[in-house]
Amino acid sequence: MIVAVDAAGGDYYPINPIEGSILALNEDASLQIILVGPEELLEKELTNHTYDKSRMQIVHAPEIIEMHDSPSAAVKNKRNSSITIGINLHKEGKCDAFVSAGNTGALLAASTFILGKLKGVSRPTIASYYPTLKGFRLLVDAGANLELKPEHAYQFAKMGQVFCAQVMGIENPKVGMLNVGEEEGKGTDEMKEIYEHLTQLEGFIGNVEGRDIFPAKADVFVTDGVVGNILLKFGESIPSALKQMVKASAKKGIVSKLYLFAAQKVLRTSLSPFNYENVGGIPFLGVNGVSIVGHGGSSALAIKNMIKSAINCVQNDVNGKIVASLN
Amino acid sequence: MIVAVDAAGGDYYPINPIEGSILALNEDASLQIILVGPEELLEKELTNHTYDKSRMQIVHAPEIIEMHDSPSAAVKNKRNSSITIGINLHKEGKCDAFVSAGNTGALLAASTFILGKLKGVSRPTIASYYPTLKGFRLLVDAGANLELKPEHAYQFAKMGQVFCAQVMGIENPKVGMLNVGEEEGKGTDEMKEIYEHLTQLEGFIGNVEGRDIFPAKADVFVTDGVVGNILLKFGESIPSALKQMVKASAKKGIVSKLYLFAAQKVLRTSLSPFNYENVGGIPFLGVNGVSIVGHGGSSALAIKNMIKSAINCVQNDVNGKIVASLN
Repeated sequence: MIVAVDAAGGDYYPINPIEGSILALNEDASLQIILVGPEELLEKELTNHTYDKSRMQIVHAPEIIEMHDSPSAAVKNKRNSSITIGINLHKEGKCDAFVSAGNTGALLAASTFILGKLKGVSRPTIASYYPTLKGFRLLVDAGANLELKPEHAYQFAKMGQVFCAQVMGIENPKVGMLNVGEEEGKGTDEMKEIYEHLTQLEGFIGNVEGRDIFPAKADVFVTDGVVGNILLKFGESIPSALKQMVKASAKKGIVSKLYLFAAQKVLRTSLSPFNYENVGGIPFLGVNGVSIVGHGGSSALAIKNMIKSAINCVQNDVNGKIVASLN
Repeated sequence: MIVAVDAAGGDYYPINPIEGSILALNEDASLQIILVGPEELLEKELTNHTYDKSRMQIVHAPEIIEMHDSPSAAVKNKRNSSITIGINLHKEGKCDAFVSAGNTGALLAASTFILGKLKGVSRPTIASYYPTLKGFRLLVDAGANLELKPEHAYQFAKMGQVFCAQVMGIENPKVGMLNVGEEEGKGTDEMKEIYEHLTQLEGFIGNVEGRDIFPAKADVFVTDGVVGNILLKFGESIPSALKQMVKASAKKGIVSKLYLFAAQKVLRTSLSPFNYENVGGIPFLGVNGVSIVGHGGSSALAIKNMIKSAINCVQNDVNGKIVASLN
């Protein structure tokens, strides 16, 4: 198994991608890593680490796609970026997957444009892990498709189900459509049409509401990219907001220092369902390859888990199963 | 000041509306309450309470609009419901405001249809309080307008600002548009058009993201009713989800019983920003009257605070200021 890692993407490159890659190498003796990024920078950073040199190589990519770069322009104009070169390596069969904590839009554009779509897929989508009381569940679309077209919703849900079952280990995943009420007939005309399409899907449980996310009433929550993206970023902000709320009540003297200490410790433990490091990254579902994107702030642990997700997708033949389920 | 209270709405009528009304009467000697609902039921419940009989009267409304009734059908077919009769009392000048914990859609329909719109308002909207690290802020639209039309967004934001300043005591409220990124040009074509309209608004700070809600980067978050409704219900589910997460880590033996006890106590205190009881209800902005709706599960305290909100709206002439700001 060969995984190419974007070593010039995310907020903490090259350190975190390199450390994460080494962690992954140490866990899996059959793994080989290709670091993609500016050669000199990577070589210099690698001198600080001990690792199995026979299983790690560098492919030079001098250009950097910044987090705020416009995705399509970046892919068009920066042909020597780590993302474009990494995805091309994958296209040419020189690696089995590509992972990146870099510019999500640019990675989506490069993946769709260079790798192309899987047979039968009309639109690739980004799914995202979402923390619930039962562990992580899936939110699709998480920002790649701002408008959810009725004709795409069925495929997004189906691809989410395959990923849920094959990679997340959830049997017979239930699909719910996020809406303003549970009853059939809720939402805009377009949402009603989407509902209609989804009724043909095995495992569709109907409309679900905002309050149904934490109890994981569904395993795959279908929504448009605007709702998905706003919910995703809102969810990510909950742990730090809570810590601040706890601190604030301590400052006001409402709770004692001893209680505060205990509470902070418990909160740290209890909020572990929110720890995205444990899942690391999410795949673009529907592209003809395995392309995983992680949070810009990904730690070394998160990068390692992104690599593991990629291996998982390849070993479980997620793409083959998506094609089989749609054709 | 005369406030009519829906005593046949919400999950706990007639008890909570009656208890909340009595709490309000006790706090404000100049207040008079009209309880609207089935006379016999209300009279029977009132025998359990001590209150100033000279300031409380009943107006009989035999029909009940259930929480799951279709709003427009309910208003059309149940003309003797507490909502229709209460709003008509307001229309006829027999009270200064109407508050209800009943069917939101039915109250919106009755308010818009019977009271009509304020001069210059093209569409009424429901704003909703949203908990942040700085206290409650406003989310508009919270479900009345599933699609946010560019031509309505400016008015919704403006009405939100007036309510924020006059009732919530926030000076020079900042308006942010919920979007998938901060930069101008993010979102769907319609969202870009809405952005354009909002640039004409004093206090508009541009796009904000899901992660900007808790830190209250804006005071008024503008979005469509789908996003608003999903976020609202998701937000309401956070406190109980957290309590369950804390309990779960205790069950797994990760935290000790003593720590758990302390943490639960701290959490209860720290989560007070989420306590909707303290704000009670939210007004339909843009209707020609003061019509406040509360959560179906409203407690007596929440009902009392809804009545106080209504008094606030009347005393601060929120509607007059909305008309002045739009014309």
